[in-house]
Amino acid sequence: MRTRTQVGIVGAGPAGLLLAQLLHRQGIDTVVLERQDEAYVRARVRAGVLEPGTVRALKAVGAGDRMLREGLVHGGFELRFGGRGHRIAMDELTGESITVYGQQEVVADLIDARRAAGETVEFEATVTEVTGTDTATPVIHYRRGGETGEAAEIHELHCDFVAGCDGFHGVCRPPQSRSYERDYPFAWLGILAAVPPSSDELIYARHDRGFAMHSMRSPSVSRFYLQVAPDTDLAEWPDERIWKELRIRLSTDDGWQLTEGEVTEKSVTGMRSFVSDTMRHGRLLLAGDAAHIVPPTGAKGLNLAVSDAQLLGESLISWYADGDEGPLAAYSDTCLRRVWRAQDFSSWMTGLLHRREGAEFEQRAQLAQLAYICRSTAASTMLAENYVGATGM
Amino acid sequence: MRTRTQVGIVGAGPAGLLLAQLLHRQGIDTVVLERQDEAYVRARVRAGVLEPGTVRALKAVGAGDRMLREGLVHGGFELRFGGRGHRIAMDELTGESITVYGQQEVVADLIDARRAAGETVEFEATVTEVTGTDTATPVIHYRRGGETGEAAEIHELHCDFVAGCDGFHGVCRPPQSRSYERDYPFAWLGILAAVPPSSDELIYARHDRGFAMHSMRSPSVSRFYLQVAPDTDLAEWPDERIWKELRIRLSTDDGWQLTEGEVTEKSVTGMRSFVSDTMRHGRLLLAGDAAHIVPPTGAKGLNLAVSDAQLLGESLISWYADGDEGPLAAYSDTCLRRVWRAQDFSSWMTGLLHRREGAEFEQRAQLAQLAYICRSTAASTMLAENYVGATGM
Repeated sequence: MRTRTQVGIVGAGPAGLLLAQLLHRQGIDTVVLERQDEAYVRARVRAGVLEPGTVRALKAVGAGDRMLREGLVHGGFELRFGGRGHRIAMDELTGESITVYGQQEVVADLIDARRAAGETVEFEATVTEVTGTDTATPVIHYRRGGETGEAAEIHELHCDFVAGCDGFHGVCRPPQSRSYERDYPFAWLGILAAVPPSSDELIYARHDRGFAMHSMRSPSVSRFYLQVAPDTDLAEWPDERIWKELRIRLSTDDGWQLTEGEVTEKSVTGMRSFVSDTMRHGRLLLAGDAAHIVPPTGAKGLNLAVSDAQLLGESLISWYADGDEGPLAAYSDTCLRRVWRAQDFSSWMTGLLHRREGAEFEQRAQLAQLAYICRSTAASTMLAENYVGATGM
Repeated sequence: MRTRTQVGIVGAGPAGLLLAQLLHRQGIDTVVLERQDEAYVRARVRAGVLEPGTVRALKAVGAGDRMLREGLVHGGFELRFGGRGHRIAMDELTGESITVYGQQEVVADLIDARRAAGETVEFEATVTEVTGTDTATPVIHYRRGGETGEAAEIHELHCDFVAGCDGFHGVCRPPQSRSYERDYPFAWLGILAAVPPSSDELIYARHDRGFAMHSMRSPSVSRFYLQVAPDTDLAEWPDERIWKELRIRLSTDDGWQLTEGEVTEKSVTGMRSFVSDTMRHGRLLLAGDAAHIVPPTGAKGLNLAVSDAQLLGESLISWYADGDEGPLAAYSDTCLRRVWRAQDFSSWMTGLLHRREGAEFEQRAQLAQLAYICRSTAASTMLAENYVGATGM
């Protein structure tokens, strides 16, 4: 089956859905293809810290109402080390706050906004290939069905542009792309728990046993992370062991209490830095995780995806409105400036808080740096302005 | 031969000589032993950037007159990368400036001040061992002469305290001390040149071929450094090659000119981080390079030595004046807080500017960080306040 659209979007994550919404509002026709089914996408637990720029972008496309009602606005977060907590007052230091709101809620809101605009998302559509990206009519090849014995439908979607928003393991990114990578010898064991948060704000804890984090999704759902080895088997981490380790790593000298309860989700996620340079291959434009991965410590992944989608949306709108090639030609370099800032920050914040086996010099330097950050206005402002995404990009 | 003093000081570098001066002014008897001869010590080229705290310390002991006349006060320095220079205005950002004045001049002024006070330095005195550091009367064993065939004089200097200020390769630091180390895969090739500086301020340059630095010692003497491999043979670096490499690494898009001329000194220095914890072993107290080494990038080595000596001086003065053990008991921990801050900063600034072979991700992150430092007031203040030593220690 052969169909046609102006912009074919591969992937119904935050980047793809926001881009679709931006383009639709300017009368540009889009098709959004997503490999998973809708229930999976709406439940996929990911990040949950929105920079103010991300909040503004979601509001601007009419997908911000629930986020404004349910999102938790935080003016600070805590660095915890040596048995003490130290608040980084983002709002006082930068004038900005972050909003705690799960990525899957952002996705759900964007799907709902797209439906409300009379558009659809093609779920369970498996893209196999993108061809003709160096011509004026690139083609997305995909199939639907075929998993349960019936014949698969084979589709060709002919487009003016293809937006590759299909994540790090997606098919859009050409394998010959030049890339930059960095590995980290740790992973995060993350849980969702049906308990109220034990603190009003996020806690990033550096402990001799490794990093731990206290986060949240709502007044009744908490999120926690533990630094673990990359090859960690979840079977070795029954809930009781997780709670015990969280109690140890988050403990304070003044007896801070962790509220424990039912664990509803549990996973181990590896950590890597990856940047594809360029993010543009002719009429194929990459956005979000398809183009870059950051370690989760700085909470930058979702925010970068949103900023890519905004810039890509603006670039395509210029092209359709005025035939202006300029913004599209600059798209990759403009994105990558922000991406590299975020990579550098994420890598630095990861190093600040994680334990590297045997690296005793680094651990002492880490503690000196944490103490310095907490007493220096310049250093805590630097941390805060990176965290809220106000680094002048 | 057996003699006696209150505080025996091993090493006539900045730490040992400043300590001697501080103690002498309070009527505490000292003997300073130095392995090298006087001419060598007065000509030994080392660092040349004095923090304001170092300047104050030298003035306070009456060894600051020539420094105040001849030292070059700098309110900023330049970060150079991507063909452009960016000034870090230390004075505006922190209210403080640094003074460019060679370490050997500091040493010469301290020797002269000691002589003016009627005291001496025992040059060509080779300390072989320090014993009895866990008793009330530690003993410094040293010899003089014996190199040219005549019999060496063997000495025992009995003290209340021994100050080990004899550098990283000295004999005072007990070999069993717990230590923290970090190696770097680079060295600095440094030259002195009989040419006027090519810029009014220091230039720290990050280039794809490696770090380079433009520094100075006086209006007619310049100092330059090039990042080289640790196993570099100076024979492979004739002057012409050095100047050519400096021209390349320091070049700017707007045609900045390097003034070249006669090279009067040339050396290769390895780079390492080292911290001995503790800096106190009973009645033996370590100060300066005997206790810690930093990579030279942040210009912290001499300044740490001076701050150790000040603190050790104050601690010993309290002990002699009031019998107060407190400051001596706290000496090591107090010093080490500043030392770890400096280690973290020096290691960070080294990573910011040096090229690691094959580390392409780090090089891109480096450029993003440099660009960020230059546009963010918080980040440039952080760099500046560390550089001038105003980090709240």
